[in-house]
Amino acid sequence: MTALQQQLAELLKQYEEEMIQLRRHFHENPELSFEEVETPKTIAAFHRALGHEVHEGVGGNGVVAKLVGGKPGKTVALRADFDALAITEETGLPFQSKIKGRMHACGHDGHTASLLILAKALNKMKDDLAGTIVFIHQHAEELAPGGAISMIKDGCLEGVDAIFGTHLWAPTELGKVQTAKGPLMAAADGIYITIKGKGGHGSNPSDTKDSIVLAAQFITNLQQLVARRVNPLRPAVVSIGHIEALNPFNVIADQVYMKGTVRTFHEEERSLLEREIEELLKATCYLTKADYEYEFVRGYPPVVNHEAETEHIMESAEKIADVAAVELVDPNMGGEDFAYYLEEIPGAFFFTGAKNPNWEEVYPHHHPKFDIDERSLRIAANVLGQATLDYFAKHN
Amino acid sequence: MTALQQQLAELLKQYEEEMIQLRRHFHENPELSFEEVETPKTIAAFHRALGHEVHEGVGGNGVVAKLVGGKPGKTVALRADFDALAITEETGLPFQSKIKGRMHACGHDGHTASLLILAKALNKMKDDLAGTIVFIHQHAEELAPGGAISMIKDGCLEGVDAIFGTHLWAPTELGKVQTAKGPLMAAADGIYITIKGKGGHGSNPSDTKDSIVLAAQFITNLQQLVARRVNPLRPAVVSIGHIEALNPFNVIADQVYMKGTVRTFHEEERSLLEREIEELLKATCYLTKADYEYEFVRGYPPVVNHEAETEHIMESAEKIADVAAVELVDPNMGGEDFAYYLEEIPGAFFFTGAKNPNWEEVYPHHHPKFDIDERSLRIAANVLGQATLDYFAKHN
Amino acid sequence: MTALQQQLAELLKQYEEEMIQLRRHFHENPELSFEEVETPKTIAAFHRALGHEVHEGVGGNGVVAKLVGGKPGKTVALRADFDALAITEETGLPFQSKIKGRMHACGHDGHTASLLILAKALNKMKDDLAGTIVFIHQHAEELAPGGAISMIKDGCLEGVDAIFGTHLWAPTELGKVQTAKGPLMAAADGIYITIKGKGGHGSNPSDTKDSIVLAAQFITNLQQLVARRVNPLRPAVVSIGHIEALNPFNVIADQVYMKGTVRTFHEEERSLLEREIEELLKATCYLTKADYEYEFVRGYPPVVNHEAETEHIMESAEKIADVAAVELVDPNMGGEDFAYYLEEIPGAFFFTGAKNPNWEEVYPHHHPKFDIDERSLRIAANVLGQATLDYFAKHN
Amino acid sequence: MTALQQQLAELLKQYEEEMIQLRRHFHENPELSFEEVETPKTIAAFHRALGHEVHEGVGGNGVVAKLVGGKPGKTVALRADFDALAITEETGLPFQSKIKGRMHACGHDGHTASLLILAKALNKMKDDLAGTIVFIHQHAEELAPGGAISMIKDGCLEGVDAIFGTHLWAPTELGKVQTAKGPLMAAADGIYITIKGKGGHGSNPSDTKDSIVLAAQFITNLQQLVARRVNPLRPAVVSIGHIEALNPFNVIADQVYMKGTVRTFHEEERSLLEREIEELLKATCYLTKADYEYEFVRGYPPVVNHEAETEHIMESAEKIADVAAVELVDPNMGGEDFAYYLEEIPGAFFFTGAKNPNWEEVYPHHHPKFDIDERSLRIAANVLGQATLDYFAKHN
Repeated sequence: MTALQQQLAELLKQYEEEMIQLRRHFHENPELSFEEVETPKTIAAFHRALGHEVHEGVGGNGVVAKLVGGKPGKTVALRADFDALAITEETGLPFQSKIKGRMHACGHDGHTASLLILAKALNKMKDDLAGTIVFIHQHAEELAPGGAISMIKDGCLEGVDAIFGTHLWAPTELGKVQTAKGPLMAAADGIYITIKGKGGHGSNPSDTKDSIVLAAQFITNLQQLVARRVNPLRPAVVSIGHIEALNPFNVIADQVYMKGTVRTFHEEERSLLEREIEELLKATCYLTKADYEYEFVRGYPPVVNHEAETEHIMESAEKIADVAAVELVDPNMGGEDFAYYLEEIPGAFFFTGAKNPNWEEVYPHHHPKFDIDERSLRIAANVLGQATLDYFAKHN
Repeated sequence: MTALQQQLAELLKQYEEEMIQLRRHFHENPELSFEEVETPKTIAAFHRALGHEVHEGVGGNGVVAKLVGGKPGKTVALRADFDALAITEETGLPFQSKIKGRMHACGHDGHTASLLILAKALNKMKDDLAGTIVFIHQHAEELAPGGAISMIKDGCLEGVDAIFGTHLWAPTELGKVQTAKGPLMAAADGIYITIKGKGGHGSNPSDTKDSIVLAAQFITNLQQLVARRVNPLRPAVVSIGHIEALNPFNVIADQVYMKGTVRTFHEEERSLLEREIEELLKATCYLTKADYEYEFVRGYPPVVNHEAETEHIMESAEKIADVAAVELVDPNMGGEDFAYYLEEIPGAFFFTGAKNPNWEEVYPHHHPKFDIDERSLRIAANVLGQATLDYFAKHN
Repeated sequence: MTALQQQLAELLKQYEEEMIQLRRHFHENPELSFEEVETPKTIAAFHRALGHEVHEGVGGNGVVAKLVGGKPGKTVALRADFDALAITEETGLPFQSKIKGRMHACGHDGHTASLLILAKALNKMKDDLAGTIVFIHQHAEELAPGGAISMIKDGCLEGVDAIFGTHLWAPTELGKVQTAKGPLMAAADGIYITIKGKGGHGSNPSDTKDSIVLAAQFITNLQQLVARRVNPLRPAVVSIGHIEALNPFNVIADQVYMKGTVRTFHEEERSLLEREIEELLKATCYLTKADYEYEFVRGYPPVVNHEAETEHIMESAEKIADVAAVELVDPNMGGEDFAYYLEEIPGAFFFTGAKNPNWEEVYPHHHPKFDIDERSLRIAANVLGQATLDYFAKHN
Repeated sequence: MTALQQQLAELLKQYEEEMIQLRRHFHENPELSFEEVETPKTIAAFHRALGHEVHEGVGGNGVVAKLVGGKPGKTVALRADFDALAITEETGLPFQSKIKGRMHACGHDGHTASLLILAKALNKMKDDLAGTIVFIHQHAEELAPGGAISMIKDGCLEGVDAIFGTHLWAPTELGKVQTAKGPLMAAADGIYITIKGKGGHGSNPSDTKDSIVLAAQFITNLQQLVARRVNPLRPAVVSIGHIEALNPFNVIADQVYMKGTVRTFHEEERSLLEREIEELLKATCYLTKADYEYEFVRGYPPVVNHEAETEHIMESAEKIADVAAVELVDPNMGGEDFAYYLEEIPGAFFFTGAKNPNWEEVYPHHHPKFDIDERSLRIAANVLGQATLDYFAKHN
């Protein structure tokens, strides 16, 4: 173990209580996506107190702080998001949200506290750091189009060589770090479709263009699109979750409205499905000369880790005493706007296990009873910090 | 032309103005199905004034009157319905409905006036009539289970040898009489279906039982039921008019609710579809072990004319000066509870054309602007009366 | 009963044995469609012996004979077909076919004998006949395009006012006469389809255009065409009977070949299906840009009886002592090129019951054990002859 | 570079010409799966000449040879298959197959020559080897059930700690080594299905159970099985490649026969599909009470590499001078009975690039013009040999 590695681990242990208090402060005072006011102020003040160069209002409500090490070297960005959700908390925790209808139900409070305390620790080690660290405190991860894209436009990645970030992850046991080379989280897009036939009386189908029958054909063949047109080695899901044609029983439906989601991990399948779903609609409506409306609304792109940076974060994580296992896992179908940073520069995203081993039931992210094991905060900080030190060392 | 035939035609001409005024009276004072109070009173009083034996409150709000001819013979029943609809009239006629939200939008006012004046005419010819006439004034034709079934239970068909009835028919030109041997109007049943799968997140289909995909398979295969399992010489229609699963775009639907109608002309296909639709549901749900709820609600049975009585009514209609054409037509898919009488005794139902040849637009039955050419009333009365005279003559 | 009616009935009884022997002669010497040589010679000789004007080689192998009555009047054509089938007889009758692989397995031998003897009887009554009779002996009914169409082109209907014809019908009991106003037999068309996708290895669907999946979609939606696009009051059937893509198990099929049949009773549905089946193919192939080949081969058109002539034949049949019942029946799905005559001039076609009431099993038409009750021949002749007499009488 | 590593590389270079001649000898004299006679004799003689312990007739025609190193240590097995295919060679090479209808069209000749010469090289280094090497020369890889399973039963893996094997791979450029952690090649199973409906005339669908319509429903819903019931992260393919119902155009098919393939990488999806395809058949046939026959024939299981051994082989490959790149690749859908060894003991399989960079066209494996760049043989031998040395070193 190097001296710096040991120093970082010890500093984080020393500041752990402060980290938890900070997280609880954010937890009690959640702010919704794009409506963050106090949280960025607190973040900016914290960095300023450490003497870091601070930019507020980056791309909206984002905060970017910079710590320049005592020695020359590469620039590494570390990102934590800080927005909360429109959910009423039901945990009954002593530091439960003070505001009805708002809750840190996804762990972003922990992300922020973890990154701030890591900044404080690294600041202590400043003279020995052979590079620069950019702390990206991002607003509005929960709501498309997200804060990442505007912070990037506003320059937050300028001069940065690599970026790392993590998500505290309730379904994964404390002590585990999980990631994937390549795709880690899915592109999550929306489809909005109206099939416009020609209605009539239920007894006279031949005078009509039965839009419910057309919708049924469309939905049936949609799954064939997934099964026959998409490369079977490339995961893809198309689900119609909403269907609506609310007529009396003896009527033939004039039109049907549908909503659904498309999940993919690669641009190739994403574009293919965007295009082919419309082609299928066209083919379905062709016979009866029915009309349709089609909207494909792109959500976040897939989070695709860069291979070298993924190996880097895995090697750094292996060095942390409290990390019991570093695992390559199958990607999951959720979305994250960390994706945008990875489209610009090399980097990697990973999950930090946050499930208390004694919990009988784990509430999923976005659940009113969602909770994390707070020991995960120090682990997250330590992995990110160690990855930074290793990056400086490797590229010197 | 026989003397009786000529007398009937002349009497009806003589009373035509009274018939029209009577119709307008009913038109101004519509009463909803099962809520008829004044209409049956007026009807009963009319018959009583003629000296007919009158029964009120038959099977609910029905009125039955009897005219015994001067000579022995068969007993013929003539039926007219008298209920109105929950529609606000928009015709702007001088005798428009006095009550908002109620309207004689199907011609039952005309049926009643026509039958009453026919009774008056036949009463004049009483001594020469070789048989008995039962006037069935039926309430509640518009609303299942209808008035016919309870009037029959209450004995209105006792001793009756044959029954005839007509519907004033706005889509058919004045002067035409249309009927069919065998099926004339369809059985009109309702189906109410819930497919109960297992919901979940739109990105994880394999953990769910996607009820929208199941519904799409069901609707698709439903049409194959009609095309492959039903005798192609027997018309059948199954239409799903309502489909409902109102979820966010990124969800897999827990359940789907559907409503539809089944139209057939024969009990064989009706039962077959009632049974096979459920079998199809069972087959559809089988794979994923999804559940379903299924309700098949029988409406009126099909109106199936008896062959001899249909020929009889056609021959009688041919004799009427104002009848330009007597036509055999394809059955139509509407419903009528005249069907119940025809399940008990021989008889026939027919359409009396009521479309003014000068109208540019014809509003369909049940439309707020629905209207009839009032000259159709006398034609309807004349055909029914002539058929009665001919029936007495034929069976003496 | 008129004198002529009685005379006809008696003459036919008198000649009945000759009629049967004639039929047995034809039965022993069957000739295939378009290959008839001896049969037309025998027919022509028979008529010539009666002094009738005879035309041989009409439209191919057809024979037309003319009997001009002693009084002026209308011209009625009576048609009988005389070709046999490529079937080896297994009846074991004493007059069984002399030729292996050829058999009168559809009753055309009876049609011909019946018409010839009717000609002989009417010839006897010649002076009292108020009109002209054209005997159309048609070749090649069994094989499309059939003999009717070329005989018509060759003038066999010139000057003819009405045409009548019958089919001895094994499934119907002796003594019954069955017909229908309007459609009696279906149009029987063929469809021949190739879907041309792009083959490949069974493990790589996304590189291919899976023609079997396309065929499955097509067949599924084909039934929806029947159930939703065709008027439910108009019978229509589309059946795919042949499907073929014979590859190893681990291959994706390059192309699929299908054959099927379309049955309708009206030109409207026939054209609609001819057109919409191709539209459905187009729609099905559209998505993957697959190709198709489509051939719709029209067989005989539907046999559509004219109403007045149908009523005429029914009334005439009612007069025949041996006719126990005259029935209106549902149309059947078989084909007959009598259809072409009815497209040109008024007329009617009917079935003459030919099932021996004692038979336990009835072999269907075209079966190697097919047989008829020979008493049906005289009934057929009598009905056709009576209809001719009545037609002359009615139009004098 | 260690001394052993250098010695191995040099020896292989020294013997390269012999390796190529050996390969050409096998190439000229191909023997079909399960019919191998001369090839195993040649192999056995080669090992015997080196003084190795040799077992012939292992599990059929297999040969197992053992080289015991001078120092104690682990036991590593190296496997090469030696059977050829029933293909007539069209390469025109000077050493083309001497036998029409038999060809080494998959590179097994190269596998065998490569392993024999590696055995010779390692034999030279015998005294310095800290472990034992088992050379598994397997017969019958090309034909299910394959030779691996019987050789394992016959004890070829007894005492073995790990196994490695490679396939010379024509689509991959010379100098590349490719593998995957976990699934590398698919399970390749067969499905054989008969749907038994009830035939009839094409015009009478309602009297039948149309097996072609049932097959179309089945095929359509089969793809929904893949798209909705299988975890989207787990590749799966179901393809129907053969469909057969060869009837006249106007018939409804009594039965349909289908053949297809199922490709998966995990036992979970393999079993799920085996089971659910039958459930879908059951559900499809349920409505019409049609019957079915279903056979799911398991081919080879998926080749699933063990993680540690995969990393091991990758690290060893990195050390070879002529290896330009070691890559993790997506699995492919082909099958290999090396799968069985990996079900028993740890190990890894990899592809050794064999495409000459100057070739314009590459013929796929099993093609009559298939060829490999012979320089790939030495690379394959070197990677396998280095992996053996490294395994001994690591586990000492």
